Amino acid sequence: MPIRSFNPPIRTLMGPGPSDVHPRILEALSRPTIGHLDPAFINMMDELKELLQYAFQTKNALTMPVSAPGSAGMETCFVNLVEPGDKVIVCQNGAFGGRMKENVERCGGLPIMVEDAWGEAIDIGKLEEALKTHADAKIVAMVHAETSTGAQSDVASLVKLAQAHDCLTIVDAVTSLGGTPLKVDSWGIDAIYSGSQKCLSCTPGLSPVSFNERALEKVRNRRTKVQSWFMDLNLVMGYWGEGAKRAYHHTAPINALYSLHEALLILKEEGLENAWDRHLKNHLALKAGLEAMGLEFIVKETDRLPQLNAVTIPAGVDDAAVRSRLLNEYNLEIGAGLGALAGKVWRIGLMGHSSCAENILLCVGALESVLGEMGADIKLGVALPAMHKALSSD
Amino acid sequence: MPIRSFNPPIRTLMGPGPSDVHPRILEALSRPTIGHLDPAFINMMDELKELLQYAFQTKNALTMPVSAPGSAGMETCFVNLVEPGDKVIVCQNGAFGGRMKENVERCGGLPIMVEDAWGEAIDIGKLEEALKTHADAKIVAMVHAETSTGAQSDVASLVKLAQAHDCLTIVDAVTSLGGTPLKVDSWGIDAIYSGSQKCLSCTPGLSPVSFNERALEKVRNRRTKVQSWFMDLNLVMGYWGEGAKRAYHHTAPINALYSLHEALLILKEEGLENAWDRHLKNHLALKAGLEAMGLEFIVKETDRLPQLNAVTIPAGVDDAAVRSRLLNEYNLEIGAGLGALAGKVWRIGLMGHSSCAENILLCVGALESVLGEMGADIKLGVALPAMHKALSSD
Repeated sequence: MPIRSFNPPIRTLMGPGPSDVHPRILEALSRPTIGHLDPAFINMMDELKELLQYAFQTKNALTMPVSAPGSAGMETCFVNLVEPGDKVIVCQNGAFGGRMKENVERCGGLPIMVEDAWGEAIDIGKLEEALKTHADAKIVAMVHAETSTGAQSDVASLVKLAQAHDCLTIVDAVTSLGGTPLKVDSWGIDAIYSGSQKCLSCTPGLSPVSFNERALEKVRNRRTKVQSWFMDLNLVMGYWGEGAKRAYHHTAPINALYSLHEALLILKEEGLENAWDRHLKNHLALKAGLEAMGLEFIVKETDRLPQLNAVTIPAGVDDAAVRSRLLNEYNLEIGAGLGALAGKVWRIGLMGHSSCAENILLCVGALESVLGEMGADIKLGVALPAMHKALSSD
Repeated sequence: MPIRSFNPPIRTLMGPGPSDVHPRILEALSRPTIGHLDPAFINMMDELKELLQYAFQTKNALTMPVSAPGSAGMETCFVNLVEPGDKVIVCQNGAFGGRMKENVERCGGLPIMVEDAWGEAIDIGKLEEALKTHADAKIVAMVHAETSTGAQSDVASLVKLAQAHDCLTIVDAVTSLGGTPLKVDSWGIDAIYSGSQKCLSCTPGLSPVSFNERALEKVRNRRTKVQSWFMDLNLVMGYWGEGAKRAYHHTAPINALYSLHEALLILKEEGLENAWDRHLKNHLALKAGLEAMGLEFIVKETDRLPQLNAVTIPAGVDDAAVRSRLLNEYNLEIGAGLGALAGKVWRIGLMGHSSCAENILLCVGALESVLGEMGADIKLGVALPAMHKALSSD
């Protein structure tokens, strides 16, 4: 059959990202392309920086989106800050800490792993021990919101501890930015990266990053060149830097940047604190529904991320069959388990524009109907009222 | 002033890229986002590969877009194929050969530079000499269409020569793909990268690449890990590989891929040879108009790229002032000179959807009106008829 224009099905995206993209953002994406050195575009870039500074709660001058997905944002942090031979303490409590280790090794650094069980928050005591044992460590890397498990860690305290031991900090905020409290400056984070397609509800493909002066000092004074030309901040800063004069480095993904600008504008209009509150409130409603049905969260209550809900798949239930039915019968996407949790959990995202009452209703209702029909051991008829009660409470 | 939604001006893009994006492509970009592991999306990816194979004229199984701009496509080729200590012959005849050198060095390779003047094609005799002097060279890298000068090189012959000396070849086809004859398989190119925003007329941000089996064998049998996690083809292949089962590597830029699918479909509908013919015919019309006005090309006739026309700025004319007036008075973007040619040339692109009669008329007419009013030493009143005559001839 000849290939035709691709018309995607209309899904509701409640997996680990991408999340539902607001129509305003899709519309912004399709505005006419202009040049990456057009004065009108440079002006838009300045606004985008300002909006990103708001989202990150930072005054860092180097706050910008990397022109590639979150994994490239992660790599941008590591290739710029890790020099060959540097000891880097990596706190791992899920899949993305493992990716950080890969990055450290590929930069010629020496990763010191501080491991916690998948689904648990990072244990500050273990980090303290590692910092004492490895007094020569240069960097501490950690994941704020583990997308593979739905656990959040106390980044404010972890960063403070790392800095007391003279370490720079790299924080993964891919799933946290815009969904859960995150304050780059007041927490003292040195380098941070995120993704466009989670709680910002933008299309995937961009990775907002921010570096403070302490981090940039290291980048500027490296003994060796950054191993990636594309991600070398010394070069990228010439394009994203201050002032009207911008040096060409690479051709920016123009339309994608329009969409991020619009996504951040929507966040600003709602207000960051309001967005955090909405994510929390909706999480509690989803939780009420799922727990009433008998599904269990894998992360303990105090460490749960509101935007990423990992629940155990009931015994005897065919993981893939359920997800297929949700997709085929309700156009609903929820996420599978990743790595060690594959086949054991579902990951239900309530991120950005996806975090709304109608999506919770769809998800709880569809799960109840599909699991019920498949004869799974769940409680029927109680989930929706429980969810609704949580939604209505103040 | 509060930040509002960004509404870009409507420009005609006749610089070195991005080129004008076809409305069908912008519309495709704004279709609803679905998940990167959605079966419907996986199916679209397969079509995209097939369309890219057509555009590259290859049967290479590993033919896919890197999720980042052309410079990341370049880096993907180098980080995967260059191992520390490898001698790499880089043919440089413009800005992008210099970027290749940077890539080789950052991969721990040893660049052997074969240099030609900016604006000239690569001299095959010099390459032969270098291959004889450096019998241990592993790779030869070259730019097919130098975007900084508008010169094209005889890649078919250069690649054949490199292979006779047992070297792998890396070819930069950022500006050539879709605009000028390029035949990956019959020319024997081992690794190639391009960009979405030139003759494919797609939005910027993606870099189509293709690797043959000979190249992949080297990637699979490396002594050292690829230094970039994001660009490691051993990992990326798990997502873009054959079969329905795709392993998550990074979140693909979903909507950008919709747009590339549509751009390639438009190319297929027109027919690759027809697109090449159109670019050539329109180049001849632009050339007739510019030369009638008295402007001179910097590349000799036999080596000129039809899609990128670099002409000398007339003596005494203020480069930036002219480009500003074109932009402000006619919403027309043409390109400035890059690197060694900054301030000396204009680069006029006729790429993809931008390569059409109405754009040539606008460009020649606007240049004549602006240069004429500024009192530049050009011939008035002859450019448009000359252009029109060339357009009308068969």
